[in-house]
Amino acid sequence: MDFALNEQQLALQDAARDFARHALAPHAADWDRDEHFPLETIREAGELGFLGLYTPQAYGGLALPRLDAAIVFEELAYGCTSTAAYLTIHNMVTWMIASFAQSEVAARWVPRMVAGEILGSYCLTEPGAGSDAASLKTRAERDGDGWRLSGSKMFISGAGATEVLVVMARTGGAGARGISAFIVPADSPGISYGKNEKKMGWKSQPTRAVSFDNVYVPRENLLGAEGQGFTFAMKALDGGRINIATTAVGTAQAALDAARTYVAQRVQFGAPIASLQSVQFRLADMVTTLVAARQMVRLAAYKLDSGTADASAYCAMAKRFATDASFTVANDALQLFGGYGYLNDFPLERHVRDLRVHQILEGTNEVMRMIIARRLLGDGDSLL
Amino acid sequence: MDFALNEQQLALQDAARDFARHALAPHAADWDRDEHFPLETIREAGELGFLGLYTPQAYGGLALPRLDAAIVFEELAYGCTSTAAYLTIHNMVTWMIASFAQSEVAARWVPRMVAGEILGSYCLTEPGAGSDAASLKTRAERDGDGWRLSGSKMFISGAGATEVLVVMARTGGAGARGISAFIVPADSPGISYGKNEKKMGWKSQPTRAVSFDNVYVPRENLLGAEGQGFTFAMKALDGGRINIATTAVGTAQAALDAARTYVAQRVQFGAPIASLQSVQFRLADMVTTLVAARQMVRLAAYKLDSGTADASAYCAMAKRFATDASFTVANDALQLFGGYGYLNDFPLERHVRDLRVHQILEGTNEVMRMIIARRLLGDGDSLL
Amino acid sequence: MDFALNEQQLALQDAARDFARHALAPHAADWDRDEHFPLETIREAGELGFLGLYTPQAYGGLALPRLDAAIVFEELAYGCTSTAAYLTIHNMVTWMIASFAQSEVAARWVPRMVAGEILGSYCLTEPGAGSDAASLKTRAERDGDGWRLSGSKMFISGAGATEVLVVMARTGGAGARGISAFIVPADSPGISYGKNEKKMGWKSQPTRAVSFDNVYVPRENLLGAEGQGFTFAMKALDGGRINIATTAVGTAQAALDAARTYVAQRVQFGAPIASLQSVQFRLADMVTTLVAARQMVRLAAYKLDSGTADASAYCAMAKRFATDASFTVANDALQLFGGYGYLNDFPLERHVRDLRVHQILEGTNEVMRMIIARRLLGDGDSLL
Amino acid sequence: MDFALNEQQLALQDAARDFARHALAPHAADWDRDEHFPLETIREAGELGFLGLYTPQAYGGLALPRLDAAIVFEELAYGCTSTAAYLTIHNMVTWMIASFAQSEVAARWVPRMVAGEILGSYCLTEPGAGSDAASLKTRAERDGDGWRLSGSKMFISGAGATEVLVVMARTGGAGARGISAFIVPADSPGISYGKNEKKMGWKSQPTRAVSFDNVYVPRENLLGAEGQGFTFAMKALDGGRINIATTAVGTAQAALDAARTYVAQRVQFGAPIASLQSVQFRLADMVTTLVAARQMVRLAAYKLDSGTADASAYCAMAKRFATDASFTVANDALQLFGGYGYLNDFPLERHVRDLRVHQILEGTNEVMRMIIARRLLGDGDSLL
Repeated sequence: MDFALNEQQLALQDAARDFARHALAPHAADWDRDEHFPLETIREAGELGFLGLYTPQAYGGLALPRLDAAIVFEELAYGCTSTAAYLTIHNMVTWMIASFAQSEVAARWVPRMVAGEILGSYCLTEPGAGSDAASLKTRAERDGDGWRLSGSKMFISGAGATEVLVVMARTGGAGARGISAFIVPADSPGISYGKNEKKMGWKSQPTRAVSFDNVYVPRENLLGAEGQGFTFAMKALDGGRINIATTAVGTAQAALDAARTYVAQRVQFGAPIASLQSVQFRLADMVTTLVAARQMVRLAAYKLDSGTADASAYCAMAKRFATDASFTVANDALQLFGGYGYLNDFPLERHVRDLRVHQILEGTNEVMRMIIARRLLGDGDSLL
Repeated sequence: MDFALNEQQLALQDAARDFARHALAPHAADWDRDEHFPLETIREAGELGFLGLYTPQAYGGLALPRLDAAIVFEELAYGCTSTAAYLTIHNMVTWMIASFAQSEVAARWVPRMVAGEILGSYCLTEPGAGSDAASLKTRAERDGDGWRLSGSKMFISGAGATEVLVVMARTGGAGARGISAFIVPADSPGISYGKNEKKMGWKSQPTRAVSFDNVYVPRENLLGAEGQGFTFAMKALDGGRINIATTAVGTAQAALDAARTYVAQRVQFGAPIASLQSVQFRLADMVTTLVAARQMVRLAAYKLDSGTADASAYCAMAKRFATDASFTVANDALQLFGGYGYLNDFPLERHVRDLRVHQILEGTNEVMRMIIARRLLGDGDSLL
Repeated sequence: MDFALNEQQLALQDAARDFARHALAPHAADWDRDEHFPLETIREAGELGFLGLYTPQAYGGLALPRLDAAIVFEELAYGCTSTAAYLTIHNMVTWMIASFAQSEVAARWVPRMVAGEILGSYCLTEPGAGSDAASLKTRAERDGDGWRLSGSKMFISGAGATEVLVVMARTGGAGARGISAFIVPADSPGISYGKNEKKMGWKSQPTRAVSFDNVYVPRENLLGAEGQGFTFAMKALDGGRINIATTAVGTAQAALDAARTYVAQRVQFGAPIASLQSVQFRLADMVTTLVAARQMVRLAAYKLDSGTADASAYCAMAKRFATDASFTVANDALQLFGGYGYLNDFPLERHVRDLRVHQILEGTNEVMRMIIARRLLGDGDSLL
Repeated sequence: MDFALNEQQLALQDAARDFARHALAPHAADWDRDEHFPLETIREAGELGFLGLYTPQAYGGLALPRLDAAIVFEELAYGCTSTAAYLTIHNMVTWMIASFAQSEVAARWVPRMVAGEILGSYCLTEPGAGSDAASLKTRAERDGDGWRLSGSKMFISGAGATEVLVVMARTGGAGARGISAFIVPADSPGISYGKNEKKMGWKSQPTRAVSFDNVYVPRENLLGAEGQGFTFAMKALDGGRINIATTAVGTAQAALDAARTYVAQRVQFGAPIASLQSVQFRLADMVTTLVAARQMVRLAAYKLDSGTADASAYCAMAKRFATDASFTVANDALQLFGGYGYLNDFPLERHVRDLRVHQILEGTNEVMRMIIARRLLGDGDSLL
């Protein structure tokens, strides 16, 4: 066992930290207020490699393991949770195309995605199929060599501002095996976008419903083979859960650091509130929880990189634990700020609003418990 | 012991419920989005007596006990937390003037406040004096028969839209006994108002800093005698804590009811999610917590009405317990809505944002613990 | 609403408190260590009426409402949880016979039970039927005018030391409607008793398995009519849950009082630990939780006395909330004692051990959640 | 980063697991019931090297890093918490003598301690000096070349059954710097032992008060130099906290495994309770918490082995988190067993009783929070 970061990880962490503190953090409050999707800044992130973290080097990516990427995303979220979270989605879409598209198709899309020339959105969730993704209803009917897609997607990050969609649609019968994955240009005829949803947080990324009305998709845009879509989605989810977890941890660290600074300065009853034992104990519990959360994320990423049979369960544990822990840490930090914590002038209430969705996305934390229990009560193999 | 509401309480509850569901609830989301202070609706509330709930009948008030008022405020908060919370503040200001002003002064202000012709704000908190209210720095210097007020107040609900302020200022030395309370017309020369603070919630009421620059206050506008201000503030706080607690309970009830309806309709994995045991257990815990919170509020109000020596400790317990419980209930309700809970189109995220400040205001929940412990560890009298 | 105890309640509380502090508390540690069932003391309790609290006065009982009885049991548990808990069971058995037996049969048994000449045990639970009581397997086959009972019961409080059993047995088909209730003398031929179970706590009352091998029960010993047994059991359970909850509250109060005294005396780092803010905050939370728990118990008892349709749900809420709260309070009190809390010389670890079973008995707290959710999600009637 | 155990760690884990399951687990319930200190079994542990895990090889020890020792102790606790915990104490005493005694003195004691010929106890805590260890009152007065010790120690594990004591006594003025550490043969004239304390758990190891009445200690038995005792104690505490944490984790794992097996077998409402979602979710949370706890322990041990400046804070975090988590896991496992969990026939209630003291010993979890906060709020170095 070795808990130290290696040199590459330290270098990546430094680069991401620097970017986060200079390019993200100073603008995060404005982007939140204005619901501004910072396309320019996202493209800058591409220059540092942050748009192709686990994309093969052949396509210009960094080909990092999940663990290293998690370290980068944690740092980015320290600067702006919402923007970092979008970056994880773009990375996932890029990885899906790079991994499962025919090579000449991948070669056409991926390098531009890595460079930030075009951005991606991921279209899985539907109005009636949230946690129960396998029940999705969007249909892809054969039309000549290609397909015609019809149906509705919901909660699509980046939608309306991105150039390429990966869409899960039903090419076969009910259930997971009837689902296929497609690359769909965002401006294809027949696609329409809903209003930019008003949300509690994650405001720097647009979220829209996407409707497909007989949208033509050529044969070459199928990822893998027919019926493999849900398998790809599940693979993506393990990594997605690590990302949703690690960006939560980075945000909670920002909240904790803000609180630590604040309590040393804020005077009440004649002394800095840092001298109050209740403040000290709360901070102690916050940092302890946060350290545990970070370890869970890194352990899960390590398992995923190692390809162990229990990796999915560990990703689910990391997602459940880290997102709950991070929300609690940020919410406690807000409390330490008292009334100031409630104002938009300070970052605490934004951290709380942003983090709230991490307990819901990429499978709710209740779905995580199902996954963990299934493994724990499974076929005799011990989880641990 | 008798846990049933009496006929007057039931009638008040009905009236408030009706008003909340018709005049508040349909607009609450819009008021939140637009940061709109619904003056017209507040005046309508006056017609039902809700602006003078514990004001003497001589001034047109209803002269209700705190318990009955708590029942009313709970129902109002069901419709709009933020507006109901402002109503509690207006009621408190009205009560302070009615109780402590010279009778001819009271007669001039109070009936118009009860009628909603003019509204009030309460100016206690300062930038450097939150939980530690007795350290406030706003000064009132004698000037002839009257005073000149100078200083800054912070987090003032309604400020900029109200006509009368009750202001705590220092007329004497350091500490609680040097503080006096004044009635100050909101448009007095020398008063200036800060920007409308951007807040996480409570958006239907404006919150501003208020600056006093040599503001003249005539002698008759002193409440009670010099040096009694802090005593009045402390009296007001007990009632204020019941109000902050009961409005939390009403909001949490709204969140619970929304969740109960939603889980019966939302289908996942082929059945309404109400059929999932995890959903059932969570709802069971939510309702249990909420029932306990409501009991705590009513018990504390009963104690305050009865004038028992332990009433302040019970108010602190009710405030601490009910606001924490209500936040948890609303936050759990949001989770039951999944991704929809995160959208402004549904009321859950607003409930969570609104409730968050109830754990901070009127003394943070940490200050509540100080008050409870002081009583518990006090002079030999048992708390219970 | 009126939260004050009336004169009768105050008098009962005084009497029970006095008995608890003089006759129970001084011996509770010894009874725990020696696993001693204090028959003499239990009979003394009878002299004060505590063996027939809700038995009709015709049979010598006090005919109290559940609320008044709950106040008595809370005080008794303050002195000895385990003995008080047995007293609640004896009261329930006495109530069942008084309520459902033919009057001449009741007249034969009940007065002696009220006087403490004979004691009762309640035989519902079976090895394979815990939370799922309706699946019980003990059979009662007709034999002439009477029945022959065969089967096994588990976790029977008092068994082996009591004179009369109320036994639930199957006279009909599967499910709740096939169950009947019988009075069975404890020394009937064919009854055998298992070992006195070694338990974590509740050591002053023996707990044994009871086996019935063709035990003859005469016709007159049937309670009510055939098939009514489960209905009686369910009625008993509502009261039983209030009792398990109120004895938890009394125990937690004892733990809290011990902690309050201790922290004022224990010096660490140069001052009583009561001066540490973390100690103060913990005590504040303990007392708040305990006050809420007590309110929940009293509200549920009031509902049960009033016969409201939602009474069972309120009993379930009270049981769930109060037993969890009380365990937490006692466990926190133990922590405040540090290492001394872990020693048998101090009462804290006994309180924790005793209270642990309150979260399990009379339906686990998980079963409580099922009951609450069923009501909440039920047929349109609001729970609240 | 590498989260896999290396070959040595896997071999140690296997050996410890085998010993725990064959030599400890089958007897743990009996030892608990009989308060039996299993000297023979402890000596057997010595044959496997478990009495000198971090003792230099020169004295026959294994010279393991803390991380490897933590892995061993976790496995041992799986078999018997109380015995494993004593083994950690013996290892600490052995390490102190090996590390700080003059080499010829160490050579006389340590090899026999490693072999299990003689066992050790650690005498730090006093009746009036628990968390505040630096205030201890036992005095060592100079007498010729040696010292005379007088005073009382409290909560001494193994006392009365062990052959050698390491005793902290005051050779100088008040505070930490006046304390020295001594090797004292357990049968030295003037030493007397109190009764074997009756405790909630940890029953397989005797706990006694130890009184020193003018006990002569020769000069050579001083560890290090005069005034260094507290420094040694603090060094020992970091390792001690890892040990108290890792034995908690091993116990919780045993509880979890028992629960996992039980829920697959226990039928209620017509199906194994493992099919109930509430059971699944609870197990999911238990395993998640446990995985996090184990990571915290290993991370802290790694920090301690690496000698980082923040190692003490990490040890405190691990102790706080892992002992709280483990208690919760075991307590939840008990609940899953229902009534059976409350019986001594099943291991759950013993696990709960044993684990309760882990939250208190080696510095209460409140003291842990002080240590963590001190580092977090300290001199500008980030904790993380």
